Amino acid sequence: MPAVSNKEIVVLEEESVTLPKGFKAGGMHCGIKRKRLDLGYIVSEVPATVAGVYTTNIFQAAPLLVTQESIAKENKIQAVIVNSGNANACTGEQGLLDAFEMQKGFANELGIEEHLVAVTSTGVIGELLPMDKVKTGINQILQTKYATEDNFKNAILTTDTCIKQVAVQVKINGKTVSIGGAAKGSGMIHPNMATMLGFITTDANIAHEDLHAALKDITNQTFNMITVDGDTSTNDMVLVLANGLAGNEQLTKDHPDWELFKSGLKLVSEELAKKIARDGEGATKLVEVQVNGAYSHEAARALGKSIISSNLVKTAIYGTDPNWGRIVTAIGYSGIPVEPNALKVAIGPYKVFENGLPCPFVEEEVKEYLELETVKIHVELNQGNESATAWGCDLTYDYVKINASYRT
Amino acid sequence: MPAVSNKEIVVLEEESVTLPKGFKAGGMHCGIKRKRLDLGYIVSEVPATVAGVYTTNIFQAAPLLVTQESIAKENKIQAVIVNSGNANACTGEQGLLDAFEMQKGFANELGIEEHLVAVTSTGVIGELLPMDKVKTGINQILQTKYATEDNFKNAILTTDTCIKQVAVQVKINGKTVSIGGAAKGSGMIHPNMATMLGFITTDANIAHEDLHAALKDITNQTFNMITVDGDTSTNDMVLVLANGLAGNEQLTKDHPDWELFKSGLKLVSEELAKKIARDGEGATKLVEVQVNGAYSHEAARALGKSIISSNLVKTAIYGTDPNWGRIVTAIGYSGIPVEPNALKVAIGPYKVFENGLPCPFVEEEVKEYLELETVKIHVELNQGNESATAWGCDLTYDYVKINASYRT
Repeated sequence: MPAVSNKEIVVLEEESVTLPKGFKAGGMHCGIKRKRLDLGYIVSEVPATVAGVYTTNIFQAAPLLVTQESIAKENKIQAVIVNSGNANACTGEQGLLDAFEMQKGFANELGIEEHLVAVTSTGVIGELLPMDKVKTGINQILQTKYATEDNFKNAILTTDTCIKQVAVQVKINGKTVSIGGAAKGSGMIHPNMATMLGFITTDANIAHEDLHAALKDITNQTFNMITVDGDTSTNDMVLVLANGLAGNEQLTKDHPDWELFKSGLKLVSEELAKKIARDGEGATKLVEVQVNGAYSHEAARALGKSIISSNLVKTAIYGTDPNWGRIVTAIGYSGIPVEPNALKVAIGPYKVFENGLPCPFVEEEVKEYLELETVKIHVELNQGNESATAWGCDLTYDYVKINASYRT
Repeated sequence: MPAVSNKEIVVLEEESVTLPKGFKAGGMHCGIKRKRLDLGYIVSEVPATVAGVYTTNIFQAAPLLVTQESIAKENKIQAVIVNSGNANACTGEQGLLDAFEMQKGFANELGIEEHLVAVTSTGVIGELLPMDKVKTGINQILQTKYATEDNFKNAILTTDTCIKQVAVQVKINGKTVSIGGAAKGSGMIHPNMATMLGFITTDANIAHEDLHAALKDITNQTFNMITVDGDTSTNDMVLVLANGLAGNEQLTKDHPDWELFKSGLKLVSEELAKKIARDGEGATKLVEVQVNGAYSHEAARALGKSIISSNLVKTAIYGTDPNWGRIVTAIGYSGIPVEPNALKVAIGPYKVFENGLPCPFVEEEVKEYLELETVKIHVELNQGNESATAWGCDLTYDYVKINASYRT
């Protein structure tokens, strides 16, 4: 997609975490995986203000504990080291030691304090990291030959079939501020958070507490609204690093350009979230559920998630079957009070349910719509003015194939 | 399986709803489906005390509304008419009229009052019943040639691959009391209730309120603990008919044999529930999750359901992959507070997680265990004394195949 302008936001589909000034990234194969890249980094020229959101799973993996503890010290980091192929989760005391060792090793290479390095891992649960390989990798990873953003974007992937990236630019007081992101999916994606890693960089100068509040709010509308299979992993994390090198007047929530910046950050988050959903394991389509007219935002969210999580809806979409009854069923068991006679449901432009009854539609037309790469479901509750959007994917043979044999 | 004795309960695997005295059943093909039987009935010689539990889905189908209203009149019914192939759900006013017409038609054939006939339907949502065919069927269904219990058990099936039945006998004051059941699954099976119909008959003489309380309690431990795909249908219902023809002293919860009767009813419910789970769409295995040591029964239930509902656990079991990390992950996002270091997880006889760490196990041994037709997962929380058991099945290619093309 070419660069497009969205109000005052310039979207750059081909850019990512190194578009903002002062960020470098790289990646390499250190030997956790058989062949593919498995170790990556982002480094900022100067310490960056940081905000993070983390999985709600009780079994938070070791690197998440280390990263949260480090960030808590001064809400700044300067670098991220990430491995794929092994989640360093359910690995006990040794897992923690290993995460600290990754942090220390990369901090040494960079000559910075340890707590300025965030550590993240994704992959298989319950196996110790091959630390000899990881350490050797960390010793070499800053070499010029590994220093490409492409390497980074690839090094974070597991069962993903493609890299996920996007960047935007906005003007803050006449200064160009860039926000770039890269992410990985793709199984175990469910609110809240997933086997999902999101890395967002920006050269904005921004107050920590406002960055944190914005990320939390935006995550609830983007990363926490995607579902691949309803499982919530031990390792999910989204980090935003803001290094201030754009030289703008410090952004706070009272700044006149605050909403513009926040819209840019949301756009990056939403694009990454949708790319993760579209690349869900085995998925052939992105499914978007738009819920309008709810009495509360929470009700709209819950309803959207109920539909997007239904295996029966997901298989029907895979089979291009306009089986609206499954959508209505998922609405009915969502736990949200719904007035059946006020409910309207549409599949794309085709109304399928209204006034408590199915609407007549031409089966072949809706089938054809369901063959598109993006399928939209619209739900109007006529109960109030709140809305939410949820994203997911279809459930296919390949999902079963990938997950019946991921480990062995 | 031959008849076996379980304390004082005789289990008869080959018997069903006509074992109890005074019950007849039958079924036929009336033309809703292309070929298979699609209309069935149970009739008692005399009005029977009845208890029912119904789906929690907001979009309760028309026959459920008619049946609940009828039962409310005097807590007695004498007959059940059931069709498969069309759920008569989301069918509005006409759907209600059709359900009433089925009730009236069968009541006329039997020469009994209309409110003594329960109506149930299962199948596709949102299409009107072909009432000409249904009415013609109801006019003929009492003919001797259709009057076999086998016909009934087949007429209630949809995507099921086999009939589900079991019966037990217990002695109450020296009188033999029989309890027989038949059920259908198999997609959209999830707590609470499912596209699941359960019909239980007994010749016990029993007080209505105690029968109702027992059914509710037992359903929460059996039918509401099974999951095939996490979807909860619009049509689920379990009915128990007790016609009193065994001639026992009336059972109430204060009767000395109350617990024995209740155990028998639970055994029938649990066997039917397990048979439904094992025959989940595309399933190759029954999965049983036993949770012990919870601080509350609700916590144990929620945890069991979280594991049994995980697509990642289900695909791993299909792939005979001892991927215990997915079990631990599902425990971690269940919403139930768990102390990781106190948790123990076993797959069958093989301990896989303890003291916050994976246990060493021989991969090939656990793989071999996972190839069995019944797979058990044991979770010990060490938080208290409460337990729960949940049942489900694996997630396979065939699940996707069946549900990507059910309607078209």
